[in-house]
Amino acid sequence: MVLSSFVPVSQESHFPIQNLPFGIFSSSAKPERRVGVAIGDYVLDLSVLVQAGLLSIEGCAGDVFAQSTLNDFMGLGRPVWKATRDRLQQLLDSNNAELRDNQAVRDQALVPQSEVTMHLPANIGDYTDFYCSREHATNVGIMFRGKDNALQPNWLHIPVGYHGRASSIVVSGTDITRPAGQRITPANKSQPIFATCAKLDIELEVGWFVGTGNKLGERVEIKDAKDHIFGMVIMNDWSARDIQAWEYVPLGPFLGKNFGTTISPWIVTMDALEPFLVDGPAQDAPEPLPYLKESQPSAYDVHLEVQLKPAGSAKTHTVATSNLKYMYWSVTQQLAHHTVNGCNLREGDMCGTGTLSGPNESEYGSFLELSWNGTKKLNMEDGVERTFLEDGDEVNLTGYCTSQEGYRIGFGDCRGKILPCPYQ
Amino acid sequence: MVLSSFVPVSQESHFPIQNLPFGIFSSSAKPERRVGVAIGDYVLDLSVLVQAGLLSIEGCAGDVFAQSTLNDFMGLGRPVWKATRDRLQQLLDSNNAELRDNQAVRDQALVPQSEVTMHLPANIGDYTDFYCSREHATNVGIMFRGKDNALQPNWLHIPVGYHGRASSIVVSGTDITRPAGQRITPANKSQPIFATCAKLDIELEVGWFVGTGNKLGERVEIKDAKDHIFGMVIMNDWSARDIQAWEYVPLGPFLGKNFGTTISPWIVTMDALEPFLVDGPAQDAPEPLPYLKESQPSAYDVHLEVQLKPAGSAKTHTVATSNLKYMYWSVTQQLAHHTVNGCNLREGDMCGTGTLSGPNESEYGSFLELSWNGTKKLNMEDGVERTFLEDGDEVNLTGYCTSQEGYRIGFGDCRGKILPCPYQ
Ligand SMILES: [Ca+2]
Ligand SMILES: [Ca+2]
Ligand SMILES: [Mg+2]
Ligand SMILES: [Mg+2]
Ligand code: NI
Repeated sequence: MVLSSFVPVSQESHFPIQNLPFGIFSSSAKPERRVGVAIGDYVLDLSVLVQAGLLSIEGCAGDVFAQSTLNDFMGLGRPVWKATRDRLQQLLDSNNAELRDNQAVRDQALVPQSEVTMHLPANIGDYTDFYCSREHATNVGIMFRGKDNALQPNWLHIPVGYHGRASSIVVSGTDITRPAGQRITPANKSQPIFATCAKLDIELEVGWFVGTGNKLGERVEIKDAKDHIFGMVIMNDWSARDIQAWEYVPLGPFLGKNFGTTISPWIVTMDALEPFLVDGPAQDAPEPLPYLKESQPSAYDVHLEVQLKPAGSAKTHTVATSNLKYMYWSVTQQLAHHTVNGCNLREGDMCGTGTLSGPNESEYGSFLELSWNGTKKLNMEDGVERTFLEDGDEVNLTGYCTSQEGYRIGFGDCRGKILPCPYQ
Repeated sequence: MVLSSFVPVSQESHFPIQNLPFGIFSSSAKPERRVGVAIGDYVLDLSVLVQAGLLSIEGCAGDVFAQSTLNDFMGLGRPVWKATRDRLQQLLDSNNAELRDNQAVRDQALVPQSEVTMHLPANIGDYTDFYCSREHATNVGIMFRGKDNALQPNWLHIPVGYHGRASSIVVSGTDITRPAGQRITPANKSQPIFATCAKLDIELEVGWFVGTGNKLGERVEIKDAKDHIFGMVIMNDWSARDIQAWEYVPLGPFLGKNFGTTISPWIVTMDALEPFLVDGPAQDAPEPLPYLKESQPSAYDVHLEVQLKPAGSAKTHTVATSNLKYMYWSVTQQLAHHTVNGCNLREGDMCGTGTLSGPNESEYGSFLELSWNGTKKLNMEDGVERTFLEDGDEVNLTGYCTSQEGYRIGFGDCRGKILPCPYQ
């Protein structure tokens, strides 16, 4: 029998009892930030459960759930995360009376999502962005270097990554200001102009959070990597393609990326995602070096969507769909690679997967690819056209796994609206 | 008359009363981390001065000096930093009796530097590394692309920078473990091997700390930039050249850099450095875009040294000297550029200048340049040879300004010793 909750959960909900993602929320009734899990259209307030004596986990001081970030909980390790989630599933189970029949605690502990404000789930000490979709790297390579040199020589050997900006990571719903910067024009490729970005883009990514870190000088082996990952979110790595194109040689993207990165507020745990593990793309030509070799399925079957509500339009269009399972380098390969030189990860650090494009044209995870660098217009049904983003456009990225029983393990929304640049 | 302190300060000391750099220290007698300034061979404990009623600054709660990082003090802004330093100069002045003649407070407040442990001065939220020495960029360009294309097309238009790793920034004296990673060999340039780094290097840099930040979406104009900078340290951006060379296309350095970055513990304030402002290199071919144009001298005359104590040797060799004044793009240009797209800086963020090479061969700020990528041996007087760093080698980077009156505004030491890689 499929587990079900006494809290009503619709079939399309991203948050059935099988998910229980962790997040940080506040409410007007109680403005302190604290830890909750999503269940149906509600947030379950873990700090209330602790006070009521209903949530007591070995190795986990109850006050971690009254904190304004998940960092301390993350640092406790996977057995504690799992024990907490197991206990919450038990408490929410329709067959369990403990919470179900305790109306006083229920009234306090279950807060409608419509009444809460979600915050960044962690204090993100460092943020790394990878580049792990072969389809995306190939598309970008063809556009800028031609078909014969599409993939760089290192790409099939290394989960290529770079450090991004932690300060400008914002939670879903935060407006994004169009950046300005240096860029060149077709008329003069050696004298840049200063102007607002004309090629403002998204990147459809998944972000994963480090739970337990490692010491400087030590490494995490690939077989242990999954236990260090707390869970995943959807991420929009907003990108100014024209600024990036001029600045990125030889040290990589900088101002073209660091004006904003949006994440969905709910962290879906690796335990919730475990049933959706599948084999990833074959890695046999070439084979990875031993420290990167997986011995078990390590891709996740997560359906992904890019939704656009153009400025002035009331209608939302799905402009692309993709899937996390297409990704060439797994998240565990990314983590093993990140630490193989002794680089230390800390609880709360976040890594992006890189843009998750699929093999078909309808599965490209950026407007750069969808419009083939502006050469092809995207036509919405109602006559609206786009190559890159206009002021007032709203983007939502979302995704979910679908179980054999039909429920969804979802990520919720990762939304942002483009504000005009306030400067000349 | 030159200001002088009742605390003895030798002529070669980096820490006369004209300097008063800020740092975070602890002592075995009192293990709590707290704020101090360096004076001669002593640390002046500001938390003791507050308790004794000797340090009360408008707009500055006294408890900021009892904290374990400088972040809160940094956030108070330049007028508070200046008022604090002015008051400390007054208290340390040989003509002022307040502290001089209060033996009880002196005994508590002045701690010998030999008895303290220095810590990271701030919680560094984000760390950016620039690439602002024309000589260094040109040397690297000649080595890897030849003389005719030495500088990339964007280099004279943009203070090129990238995001580095904040978690692996360590304070002077911390050992550095030799990293391992993927690299290619001359025998096969398309199949990498996994091995310990064979080209372990330093980068002689200056780091500058953001004092007051800016909001996401806002920018800091170049005329206001200096007021946002709290001060400077010496920085060693340890680099694994072989790992970097294989990984860095197209997203920049990653594992080749993020295994460790060492900084000197004392932050020398912009007010202390003000007398050493000089004109930087001419910027007229091409002229910078308006948002990067300086209207006043913005380079600093800081003598810099690279000192090496080879493994097994008792002798320290100065292998290079350089100067911060050679740097093409000023720190204020770096800050204005960093925020021109709306990227938010936060108090405690750190930026590196990039390797500070000078025009002469004896002024190169990395072994990459000094050994011309390993093709030229550096000979120490006692028969020791080096191209890159060996296990057990100790590097110290240091620097100071020399005043017309003969005193030094110094940065102290930025030391690190190479430990062998503990893995196969
Ligand atoms: Ca990205
Ligand atoms: Ca550097
Ligand atoms: Mg971004
Ligand atoms: Mg470094
Ligand atoms: Ni950071």
